[in-house]
Amino acid sequence: MREPGAHGDGSSLLLTDYYQLAMVQAYIEHGLTDMASFELFVRTLPAGRNFLMAAGLEQAVAFLEDARFDAEEIAWLRAEGRFSDAAVAALAGFRFAGDVDALPEGTVFFANEPVLRVTAPLPQAQLVESRLINLIHLQTVIASKAARLVLAARHRPLIDFGLRRAHGAEAALLAARASYLAGFAGTATALAAMRFGIPAAGTMAHSFVQAHGGEKEAFANFARSRPRNLVLLLDTYDTEAAARTVVALARDLAGEGIRIDGVRLDSGDLAVFSRRVRDILDEGGLAETCIIASGGLDEAEIADLLDGGAPVDRFGVGTSLATSSNAPALDCAYKLVEYAGLPRRKRSAGKATWPRRKQVFRRYGPEGRIEADRLSTVDSDEEGRPLLVPAMRAGRRVAPAPDLAAIRAHAATELASLPEALTRLTSGPPLLVEIAPVLERLAREADRLVDTP
Amino acid sequence: MREPGAHGDGSSLLLTDYYQLAMVQAYIEHGLTDMASFELFVRTLPAGRNFLMAAGLEQAVAFLEDARFDAEEIAWLRAEGRFSDAAVAALAGFRFAGDVDALPEGTVFFANEPVLRVTAPLPQAQLVESRLINLIHLQTVIASKAARLVLAARHRPLIDFGLRRAHGAEAALLAARASYLAGFAGTATALAAMRFGIPAAGTMAHSFVQAHGGEKEAFANFARSRPRNLVLLLDTYDTEAAARTVVALARDLAGEGIRIDGVRLDSGDLAVFSRRVRDILDEGGLAETCIIASGGLDEAEIADLLDGGAPVDRFGVGTSLATSSNAPALDCAYKLVEYAGLPRRKRSAGKATWPRRKQVFRRYGPEGRIEADRLSTVDSDEEGRPLLVPAMRAGRRVAPAPDLAAIRAHAATELASLPEALTRLTSGPPLLVEIAPVLERLAREADRLVDTP
Repeated sequence: MREPGAHGDGSSLLLTDYYQLAMVQAYIEHGLTDMASFELFVRTLPAGRNFLMAAGLEQAVAFLEDARFDAEEIAWLRAEGRFSDAAVAALAGFRFAGDVDALPEGTVFFANEPVLRVTAPLPQAQLVESRLINLIHLQTVIASKAARLVLAARHRPLIDFGLRRAHGAEAALLAARASYLAGFAGTATALAAMRFGIPAAGTMAHSFVQAHGGEKEAFANFARSRPRNLVLLLDTYDTEAAARTVVALARDLAGEGIRIDGVRLDSGDLAVFSRRVRDILDEGGLAETCIIASGGLDEAEIADLLDGGAPVDRFGVGTSLATSSNAPALDCAYKLVEYAGLPRRKRSAGKATWPRRKQVFRRYGPEGRIEADRLSTVDSDEEGRPLLVPAMRAGRRVAPAPDLAAIRAHAATELASLPEALTRLTSGPPLLVEIAPVLERLAREADRLVDTP
Repeated sequence: MREPGAHGDGSSLLLTDYYQLAMVQAYIEHGLTDMASFELFVRTLPAGRNFLMAAGLEQAVAFLEDARFDAEEIAWLRAEGRFSDAAVAALAGFRFAGDVDALPEGTVFFANEPVLRVTAPLPQAQLVESRLINLIHLQTVIASKAARLVLAARHRPLIDFGLRRAHGAEAALLAARASYLAGFAGTATALAAMRFGIPAAGTMAHSFVQAHGGEKEAFANFARSRPRNLVLLLDTYDTEAAARTVVALARDLAGEGIRIDGVRLDSGDLAVFSRRVRDILDEGGLAETCIIASGGLDEAEIADLLDGGAPVDRFGVGTSLATSSNAPALDCAYKLVEYAGLPRRKRSAGKATWPRRKQVFRRYGPEGRIEADRLSTVDSDEEGRPLLVPAMRAGRRVAPAPDLAAIRAHAATELASLPEALTRLTSGPPLLVEIAPVLERLAREADRLVDTP
């Protein structure tokens, strides 16, 4: 079976920007095929954010292992009439044979720190750029957003409801994966549950209630068809009346051994309705029935609800998670840092980069909290834990894909290592990312090496 | 070949919310299998927007034609232990056999107007909801954003540069399609160019310049390898120096019959640099060489640049287009409006809906500009052009998929039909969408039919 969410069709090398093909042809024709290192990093954090969480490495590695052009694609390249026979032949035989070093998925990171480094012959490292960014960016966007939701929810379970408004099928599947590894408890996206082994969760929709002649009949029918994790949706017509219907129904169902596990509120003032519904349930003997809130929630609203003492036990989050609606994109780049053994960098206004293959060295303070990161060259002898680890050598992964549960555990440890100020939902003073003096020196060296007027 | 951008893997019926499966089981068990009509619409326009553009119908129809569970998926459903044998058997045999009516792609529309209506046995119409919204929402988000960029660019060509920051492969491919149908001139995403027949476009990257010892050598090598649509990137080190290098190089290349078609600016103050570069090119005899601007542009920045007279000839737009960064999601819904011949609606706070199968009747004023829309029932005898047209009958499309060029021409006509006030980039008084009195009457009837306390 093909796997859109893992790689599958997504392994087409035509998932690239057209200019990559033109550049690869030029590299081949002019003999620029030496080893190149590119680093993927985020220039600045989105407004209000204090950290990011790396994700998507597994899909990136799977892509690099499988990436190729199929016969139809090669025929199309030939028919374009823009590429030489030699270039098309080289593309037809393309296999990625390079090295990848990266932050393990679930690692928290900050601006200007490499998330992933590719070292390969220049044409290879160039051609895979677009899809690599596409995969790492998406899941890093979602995991970073999900981590904020996890912090806001203070140990209450969160469920991904994002399929319908995620940007396509792959986005929905990978959003389920990225949010689960960041600490979500489950997903409503059935295919993601199957593919990634994520707990599947779901309640009921308004249409189910509407299709019936009345709410009591609808609730009873649903309950009798699905006696596990039974959650009834209260806000189709009148939320409080529906809560009273649930209390009455619970008595009938108890005799049949059916328990109502929860109710869901999806509209209106959730702070107000959650209290009123809690009261109705408690008075009706349903103190064990939990309240699930949904309906356009983001991390600020969840924090507000809990700050105000709203009795919400679980949250369903869709749009704001699956599109990362308040920061749908990161200012990331994949830049050449070394070519044929020489340091390289870019000096564009506001977009200058540090040359050479780099490592992030992380130092910890009391209680295992991050104290500072230091950006230096890979071979430097710095204090601290080096964050980037080998992921591929000579085109093959260095180890089997890690278990998603292990990644999730690592992400939880990482969140616990954030200084308290960085766990807040509003931005404060950023973590200190020190730039080792050697990078300043190398930047000057790289500039001297370039023949500019 | 499987097509992630058209349907392919995306035709899995497990691309659904888990609750749909639970509801389908309950519908089957309780005999709720009569004909149901659901309508997909947008509740409110995003802030600052005056209209939306419908897109994604072709992928929605392709999904409905192909939608099914494969053997692995059925085995997973069975292993979940939550669904009855009868329900799993029904799911295994699932084929969509309903009707679809929809706005043709490229049609402009407003809040509360149905974009698409499904009429099918209730379990079928329910099960396909999640993926239908996922497909129509994505392309409508992108086409609507692209239409604003097209209006801002005032007939200057726009190119989709969005692959790397689109949310996954399907989002990138469908963003290329949606932006092209809305009026973009081409895409940099090679696979989208192949799949949808969109003109492929591309320039060069900073890494190409960086890999060389100097800019002049880099430009010369690129020019000699790719003599068609030759665009050189100026901002790797020093934009003005690079422009002078282009002038000098153009003289050498002229002897070889190579013409420099354009230059690209990707950072810095584009208003300032576009003027300086234009002057350098003009003085150097390169008045025909066009200037392409890119680098995080959105419609407001493009309008500002052109308002200020910046000599930019073409724009490359990536992130803001492919993620619709200032409105990455629409407040859309797919709601039951009719079941077993009876009107249905939802009354949730702020989310109430109009019952019955509806049609939008559009009236035009002088110069073919839209004057008002009227929402009424499908069988009402209203003045104006009915906007929803048949797309599927009994599970089959009513006509072959329209040509993308024809959809693009329709979209251009639609944009030209917007009243001038609605073509502005900031929001003004909304278009009048009249609610026919019959809907008010039907809403009361629907409310009476429901047995609530």
